[in-house]
Amino acid sequence: MLSISNRGLHMPPSPIRKLVPYAEAAKKRGTKVYHLNIGQPDIATPESILDAVRNSDFKVLEYSHSAGNESYRKKLVQYYRQVGIAVTPEQIIITTGGSEAILFGFMACMDAGDEVIIPEPFYANYNGFAVEAGVIVKPITSSIESGFALPPIEDFEKAITSKTKAIVICNPNNPTGYLYSAAEMEVLKQIIVKHNLFLFADEAYREFCYEGTHTSAMHLTGVDDHVVLMDTISKRYSACGGRIGAFVTKNKDLLNTVMKFAQARLSPPSFAQILGEAAVDLPANYFDTTKAEYKKRRDTIVKRLNAIEGVFCPNPGGAFYAMAKLPIDDADIFCQWLLESFSYHNQTVMLAPATGFYSTAGLGKQEVRLAYVLNVESINKAMDCLEAALKEYPGRKN
Amino acid sequence: MLSISNRGLHMPPSPIRKLVPYAEAAKKRGTKVYHLNIGQPDIATPESILDAVRNSDFKVLEYSHSAGNESYRKKLVQYYRQVGIAVTPEQIIITTGGSEAILFGFMACMDAGDEVIIPEPFYANYNGFAVEAGVIVKPITSSIESGFALPPIEDFEKAITSKTKAIVICNPNNPTGYLYSAAEMEVLKQIIVKHNLFLFADEAYREFCYEGTHTSAMHLTGVDDHVVLMDTISKRYSACGGRIGAFVTKNKDLLNTVMKFAQARLSPPSFAQILGEAAVDLPANYFDTTKAEYKKRRDTIVKRLNAIEGVFCPNPGGAFYAMAKLPIDDADIFCQWLLESFSYHNQTVMLAPATGFYSTAGLGKQEVRLAYVLNVESINKAMDCLEAALKEYPGRKN
Repeated sequence: MLSISNRGLHMPPSPIRKLVPYAEAAKKRGTKVYHLNIGQPDIATPESILDAVRNSDFKVLEYSHSAGNESYRKKLVQYYRQVGIAVTPEQIIITTGGSEAILFGFMACMDAGDEVIIPEPFYANYNGFAVEAGVIVKPITSSIESGFALPPIEDFEKAITSKTKAIVICNPNNPTGYLYSAAEMEVLKQIIVKHNLFLFADEAYREFCYEGTHTSAMHLTGVDDHVVLMDTISKRYSACGGRIGAFVTKNKDLLNTVMKFAQARLSPPSFAQILGEAAVDLPANYFDTTKAEYKKRRDTIVKRLNAIEGVFCPNPGGAFYAMAKLPIDDADIFCQWLLESFSYHNQTVMLAPATGFYSTAGLGKQEVRLAYVLNVESINKAMDCLEAALKEYPGRKN
Repeated sequence: MLSISNRGLHMPPSPIRKLVPYAEAAKKRGTKVYHLNIGQPDIATPESILDAVRNSDFKVLEYSHSAGNESYRKKLVQYYRQVGIAVTPEQIIITTGGSEAILFGFMACMDAGDEVIIPEPFYANYNGFAVEAGVIVKPITSSIESGFALPPIEDFEKAITSKTKAIVICNPNNPTGYLYSAAEMEVLKQIIVKHNLFLFADEAYREFCYEGTHTSAMHLTGVDDHVVLMDTISKRYSACGGRIGAFVTKNKDLLNTVMKFAQARLSPPSFAQILGEAAVDLPANYFDTTKAEYKKRRDTIVKRLNAIEGVFCPNPGGAFYAMAKLPIDDADIFCQWLLESFSYHNQTVMLAPATGFYSTAGLGKQEVRLAYVLNVESINKAMDCLEAALKEYPGRKN
């Protein structure tokens, strides 16, 4: 009986981190590794919000309210107003990162055996939260040829069963960078109304849109009880380690339920709530600089990728990821080979094989995700490596 | 189909927080409320560990390692060595509070329908984590008459079924303050070996023992694969808001499994890991002062309680809680009445009804938990209130 649970056995390991030992070995050999594999921004966290924590003055590091500090939730109301989302402090529950918001949503809305539809490729950790909640992920496939646009409504209709409880979207998308249009958001609205589903919207990258404007799920009208926003400050302010997110909805029953989950774990982290509260007071042009930097990187990486023979990279509208199709046999083998057996002027590049972002077995074998979290100079050097690697890779396949 | 999950419906609300609105109303009427209801210490967080956060110097608030910073885990090895626990950094996974360590343990070791045995009364949030993991709590009852000693081995034997996977103990205990003896820990060892069970040990209050010494579950020999320590810095350093705990075990399969849960949520909070790391360097006598203060409070509250006619309070050996049996009809009604309908010199006291700590319906109706997290002067005033209240309460019953 002293055995791991089936849930534990089925819990997926991180598909990105499995290459880490190879990267470490490469570095030990003295090879410089350009990390385009993870979404850890290199952008400095704004000094003023770090200072808010450094200057904090209290005697006891107390539990906060289970829903997060009221002062922070009031500030967030201001932030959301700036992005066209009208909510009250009572409609916000501060979570330990966006991760906890996702887990709370899955647990509060779905039971074991219930189904959630997610357009693939998708953020791999949704799989983990689904396993924790006993929920079954039903992927519907978006394709690199269409730039990862929302799959047609018929594909959703085909996937919906009596067990379907929710649709998850990430907008702009991780890993594809795709930015859903207002029209696509309206399609999603039709589906959730017709089939009475929740719409879980992960909008971690809301601020980083380079083409067109962001349509939040919270902008959709007449579906207040359906929409749940799963938010985080991690990418917005380059504050991943803070572990502060938010669960936002106008559905009162759901808020009351999620509060019970929030109470069980007592409170979200106190220090980073101070940071998050200060962040709302950053100057209005704060995002302009960051966005301009990411856009420059995107333009560089997309141009470089498409200039390589046999490579196709659709232009991502947002976030800081690009997906590229490479002339290779197997992305997992290629990414490992880049670290284990290749170097170019004693440098190489670490990429995320796309297979980990697809739920359907066999998909994504020729695709990789590139996180443009390095400056333009490093991106160019990384692309030099990739270009040389594709000439040399024994498993090249057009 | 747009409905809350059964899990969400069954998730228990916090039994302690339900009285909060009555306390708020009392304060609005101008009544001073002595809070003996929650385990939020009033002891100042050590200035030096707050300073470690205030003086932290980095440019990007990055994700930490999913298992927590290596430097922190190495420091914790030192801390554990000081309390007679020999572990390596690889046997420690830093969690978001003790809460997450408990949830990870439940999820990694048990599936839906599996059973966990917990001596009652117990920390109410174990119920919440059990519901999240789909696990069934099987209580075995300890009694106030025996000071909440470990129930006899026969009671465990009777409760064990083919579904039983683990036993949870909290030592010293919240809510009873009971400190398990070395002999009782050996009894638990016998049971887990005989029935091949996990032993989850919540040792949040390890430092606060006033009679005898603390026997950690990690001190038990020959049961390395069975024992899981669920730890937290919240009470130890009066740092509840940091949300830093630890999942500690020597069971390699279990560590590998819990790492997958840890990876899904990316990392524990960064700021408070800095605080936790600094805490290991506090002077050796740091706990002496805190412990002496708590002991003085315990002596005061136990003496005062037992001096009230009809009240019985066993002397708790550790933690900062006392359980008392009162001459009343119903603790929930009484605790609400204290806030709603009673005052003594314009003051009253907030207590936690013990019913929330029992899993068996109907138990604890004459019992309350008192957290001695106020100074001796306030405790004395709170006891004046309680004494007067018991004379006046319409539901008095011997």
